[in-house]
Amino acid sequence: MALHRAPTAALLSIGTEIMLGEIVDTNAAFLAGELRHAGLELRTVRQVGDDADAIAAAFSECLAAFDVVIATGGLGPTHDDLTREALAQALGEELFEDAELVVTLRSRFRGMGEMPVANLRQAMRIRSAHALANPIGSAPGWWTDRDGNIAVLLPGVPGEMRRMWGEQVLPRLERRLTLRPLHARVVKAFGIGESAAAATLDALLRAPGTGIEAGIYARDDGIHVRFASRDRGAPLGDLVERALAALGEDAYGTDQTTLVDAALGALARRGVTTIATVESGTHGALLSTLSELGQGGEPRFVGGVCGERADAAALDADATLFLAAAVNDDRGRARCTVRLGGMAAFGERRSMVHGVGAQLYRRAAFSALDQVRRALTVRPEQPSDR
Amino acid sequence: MALHRAPTAALLSIGTEIMLGEIVDTNAAFLAGELRHAGLELRTVRQVGDDADAIAAAFSECLAAFDVVIATGGLGPTHDDLTREALAQALGEELFEDAELVVTLRSRFRGMGEMPVANLRQAMRIRSAHALANPIGSAPGWWTDRDGNIAVLLPGVPGEMRRMWGEQVLPRLERRLTLRPLHARVVKAFGIGESAAAATLDALLRAPGTGIEAGIYARDDGIHVRFASRDRGAPLGDLVERALAALGEDAYGTDQTTLVDAALGALARRGVTTIATVESGTHGALLSTLSELGQGGEPRFVGGVCGERADAAALDADATLFLAAAVNDDRGRARCTVRLGGMAAFGERRSMVHGVGAQLYRRAAFSALDQVRRALTVRPEQPSDR
Repeated sequence: MALHRAPTAALLSIGTEIMLGEIVDTNAAFLAGELRHAGLELRTVRQVGDDADAIAAAFSECLAAFDVVIATGGLGPTHDDLTREALAQALGEELFEDAELVVTLRSRFRGMGEMPVANLRQAMRIRSAHALANPIGSAPGWWTDRDGNIAVLLPGVPGEMRRMWGEQVLPRLERRLTLRPLHARVVKAFGIGESAAAATLDALLRAPGTGIEAGIYARDDGIHVRFASRDRGAPLGDLVERALAALGEDAYGTDQTTLVDAALGALARRGVTTIATVESGTHGALLSTLSELGQGGEPRFVGGVCGERADAAALDADATLFLAAAVNDDRGRARCTVRLGGMAAFGERRSMVHGVGAQLYRRAAFSALDQVRRALTVRPEQPSDR
Repeated sequence: MALHRAPTAALLSIGTEIMLGEIVDTNAAFLAGELRHAGLELRTVRQVGDDADAIAAAFSECLAAFDVVIATGGLGPTHDDLTREALAQALGEELFEDAELVVTLRSRFRGMGEMPVANLRQAMRIRSAHALANPIGSAPGWWTDRDGNIAVLLPGVPGEMRRMWGEQVLPRLERRLTLRPLHARVVKAFGIGESAAAATLDALLRAPGTGIEAGIYARDDGIHVRFASRDRGAPLGDLVERALAALGEDAYGTDQTTLVDAALGALARRGVTTIATVESGTHGALLSTLSELGQGGEPRFVGGVCGERADAAALDADATLFLAAAVNDDRGRARCTVRLGGMAAFGERRSMVHGVGAQLYRRAAFSALDQVRRALTVRPEQPSDR
């Protein structure tokens, strides 16, 4: 495969428990991110139940259309683990019991009593398949490379899958293919809607430049604008600067920067070393967000109070952030009143957020943090349009 | 469609952010569970990026093979929201601007300034499509029913999608198709592992009866044992009684009963009318859980305090639940110390929970609630085995 384009990939997530909605398929999201960084272009993800014909059909279609097909799940010892059979069927090969794999399996069960006979299914292989060792589980993976296409079978248990991916599959793909990793930059803004941001950034989004993709996404912590390219020399930094200039005060950071970083950073620059929160109507979303994302830095989050009588109690800190959210569930919105007491204090500021369920509370929390960074950030002169 | 079999369905999750691994596709898991309960057989789930031809091909293939195709995502106002175009292409129809949808959209933007012109994309429709109103977002959905196959377009924002599904799509599917919904009963237990519960319930799980499926699942709020059947007359109640008897004190409820219900119910029976929480090491998981699940009933949750200095402050309530969690992230476990002050007080009780990240905090909160219901619940005489 001497490719001038990025190699294409498909993911198959196999298992009836996925199709019944009993588990969320986090494997696909993990592998999607990995493939993106590695420089493979993921074209489709399919989830298929424990049905050998359906799995075989998915392998056949995807191997015909894409360079690499990676399947997770269906490598267990039971009768409904059919991924091996299905790939054998798709490639027109016979399964046989691999004596070496039997030895490996038996040694794994040593000291745990007799190996159940069902586990011998996991020692089955086809001629084209190299076994991938599973250091923390019984199911070996497969790597097949035939007729210019690669198929990989990995276990569905996330920990086993991730380890085999990182230690064995990714290095093999990097050796086997010519990969150009995707470089990406993100600009984040709060207090502006997706449509309004898209209108503001229209030219940048529509014509970001040759070989550059631009996208805009609504998240709980605001709007994310992403520029990405497989060309190492693409002027992503320039696009980021232009997006920041166009979004003005609504922009709060780039890449890994969170709203918590932006708000705590603004407080730190005012000399605040400890912060507490008092909130109502939010199910504790503000203290939860600060607990989760505000670890380790300055100012230190010392704790929060949540409840209807929350004003009565306050934790001892340099600054206390007050958030009262009046939630209208039917209309999917919350009116937020935000105030900062103590050092760097500011008076009451109001905002409105939209969302559903827990999302509404998280957005109220992010809105409070947004008010902090807006109130306390000294902006440089606005750059003129370039 | 006068079907003697269950109608088949496919899900399409659309969006480059899914293909890039930036978000986990929770919509597919939610809809998979809903389809199962409604009585549709989900045959495949596909994730596709923002590429009109690829989306159109997925629609064509799935409409040819399955009775119902439900797509989420790609209904936003921007140039990379291409689901409408793709379904139009797959069905060979032309898009036109629907004057009524334009009016609805404009009224949504009233009071928020001029509607961005990009949003007019969301008023596009094909002749076969009925618009599905979106009461909490700008993207209307589509319902098409042509040549015996149904296609549904829903927004990718989970809250909007779930509401439109429940209020508009599910009722339409129930009217349009002959469905045999799944009847399910659940027994819940805390403080027992999945393997131990499976061993205790071995006979019930292996031979629940004709046409009945039995399953056991580990969840943050404990073990869920589920019995399900499409046969309305299946003796699920008897299975529930037998599972409750076998699990003894570890069982805390059935079906919709939560650990919050069990704990608050035990407090209410002791005359407690208000409760507050004081916690540390948990990111506010206990107050968040009580805020979310403890609404409206007695005792009333008046609020909580979270933080390293949390003991210093307490909210005024009949009873105060104290939880201190010592979290060991590396080992994925937390040692919980639980105490109840005020009416119905009990002394210090300890427990250990296992998990990863936010799950560990939620489990610590559930463990505190489990201690409350265990300490305060007066058990009837244990029924003998039947």
